[in-house]
Amino acid sequence: MPLGEFGRIERYLKPLAAGFPGALGLTDDAAVFGVPAGHELVVTTDALVAGVHFLADDPPADIAAKMLRVNLSDLAAMGAEPLAYSLVTSLPAGLGDEWLADFAAQLAEDQRDYGIHLMGGDSVSTPGAVTLSVTAFGLVPAGQALRRGGADPGDLVFVSGTIGDAVLGLAVLQGNLTAADPQPLIDRYRRPRPRLSLVPVLRRFATAGLDVSDGLVADLGHLCEVSGRAAVIHADRVPLSAATRAVLAADATLLATALTGGDDYEIVFTVKPEDRDALLASGADVTEIGRLVPGGEPGSVTVLDAAGQPLPLPSRGWTHF
Amino acid sequence: MPLGEFGRIERYLKPLAAGFPGALGLTDDAAVFGVPAGHELVVTTDALVAGVHFLADDPPADIAAKMLRVNLSDLAAMGAEPLAYSLVTSLPAGLGDEWLADFAAQLAEDQRDYGIHLMGGDSVSTPGAVTLSVTAFGLVPAGQALRRGGADPGDLVFVSGTIGDAVLGLAVLQGNLTAADPQPLIDRYRRPRPRLSLVPVLRRFATAGLDVSDGLVADLGHLCEVSGRAAVIHADRVPLSAATRAVLAADATLLATALTGGDDYEIVFTVKPEDRDALLASGADVTEIGRLVPGGEPGSVTVLDAAGQPLPLPSRGWTHF
Repeated sequence: MPLGEFGRIERYLKPLAAGFPGALGLTDDAAVFGVPAGHELVVTTDALVAGVHFLADDPPADIAAKMLRVNLSDLAAMGAEPLAYSLVTSLPAGLGDEWLADFAAQLAEDQRDYGIHLMGGDSVSTPGAVTLSVTAFGLVPAGQALRRGGADPGDLVFVSGTIGDAVLGLAVLQGNLTAADPQPLIDRYRRPRPRLSLVPVLRRFATAGLDVSDGLVADLGHLCEVSGRAAVIHADRVPLSAATRAVLAADATLLATALTGGDDYEIVFTVKPEDRDALLASGADVTEIGRLVPGGEPGSVTVLDAAGQPLPLPSRGWTHF
Repeated sequence: MPLGEFGRIERYLKPLAAGFPGALGLTDDAAVFGVPAGHELVVTTDALVAGVHFLADDPPADIAAKMLRVNLSDLAAMGAEPLAYSLVTSLPAGLGDEWLADFAAQLAEDQRDYGIHLMGGDSVSTPGAVTLSVTAFGLVPAGQALRRGGADPGDLVFVSGTIGDAVLGLAVLQGNLTAADPQPLIDRYRRPRPRLSLVPVLRRFATAGLDVSDGLVADLGHLCEVSGRAAVIHADRVPLSAATRAVLAADATLLATALTGGDDYEIVFTVKPEDRDALLASGADVTEIGRLVPGGEPGSVTVLDAAGQPLPLPSRGWTHF
């Protein structure tokens, strides 16, 4: 017999809230907590819908990991340390308890890995698709949150990790791409890696930044829009994994896909030129890919190929509607 | 031509965030704000799904009002003043911009009425039903949040406003009930009235409390569970509106429906007997309906009729699964 709403909360969700006193053990309609003196709260929300943001038959553990990590990625990009999150699950009535058990087990693992706890939320049934949303809370020293605005001409553009793996992994999963070494690509699509380790570096050096979810070019474009600036980046400087390099060696036209596909959950950010050496000396896994330029249409991003010519791009990135 | 995600955010959502600086004008992936010294944050989340929590063809303004107000009701029941809210909309691709325009216009009106502002969220498309969730933030002086636990035997049970209108209004809308004066009932179903004016009274007098969403008996039962107590209430003391009294005069068996139907968004709370007179002298619109009793099964609620006999109830209240 299925557990029912209260039984599910009791068995699967309450244990996830045990580490955060402000969750009040999920007994009440709200969480209650303070913010340490000298700190601000950073609050971000991301929703995922089956058939839009993940495939309906994806393993529930992958869905849980993606859902929580895309929010952790937003916290990292704002320069915030994770504190807690609230969770809304809208699940079809026919979805078995086993689905929720697997989902919650992955959340428990990620909570340990990333130092965050469940603080509350809501559990409802839906006649439609599985719909999940997380509101994640982080802490930042007052005034130190990293924003999209604030970058100036001359600032260098850096990106963390590697770009393009996730969109190629999705293409493999959809049967649109054959790769010699598909697993690292698929893993990047299914299990984003929020760059929380970069938080101290971002707080110290970044003038503006955000995480790459819509695509490198689109997200750098968002930074440029809010900063009122234009950027030029060099396609051949964008860091690529060995698996992605192998795919591009077979079909060079996929470079545009890698640069615009999204789901990377890396961080693109800007740095004053005089801070370049100190940033690189910090040992952070980041790569310089271009700079903000004087003039230019605010929000524009020009991508140059290895010959210094503009690379034509079919679209800048993903939009949800 | 439809506006697209960014156009919709720009036109309909950004104006809702103008009054809360921490929303950063919705330009970033997160909101950033501090909490005043000596205060705690109260955070509550409620999700609403078309076909489950509202009717798919309900006017968008009614849906907006219900969505925001059920969250405000949770804040009121915790003794918190509204601060800001984040909003997740999962909308079918075919839903026109006009729907969102009406929805946002009502939010703007409610924001003015209740002193709250949009701080962020997410907008996604869905192949399924309209799904909405709000995470509402309130402020409470540290240590003064009202909880479900903390009530003792002998504490008196009070409820605000009137009970039963909303469930009878829903029955009218569904064609299951003919009422002489249906409009006040329908209004209560469609437009909950969060009892924020009770916040000072609750902070001063209440030992435990919550808002009535699942039904008076079920929600008092939740209070009793968490407090580890049992309650006895008197059906003939439960405050009823004129419209509901008229319905019950025609069919007395609907009393059980009124007591268990839910969607009242009144506040049920407990008070020390020695505080009764001061509470009533405060002029708050509240009615004493029973008390917590020594012994008894924790979580149990006995409803007595006018003759002092237990009133049989078909079910205690609403569950979502």
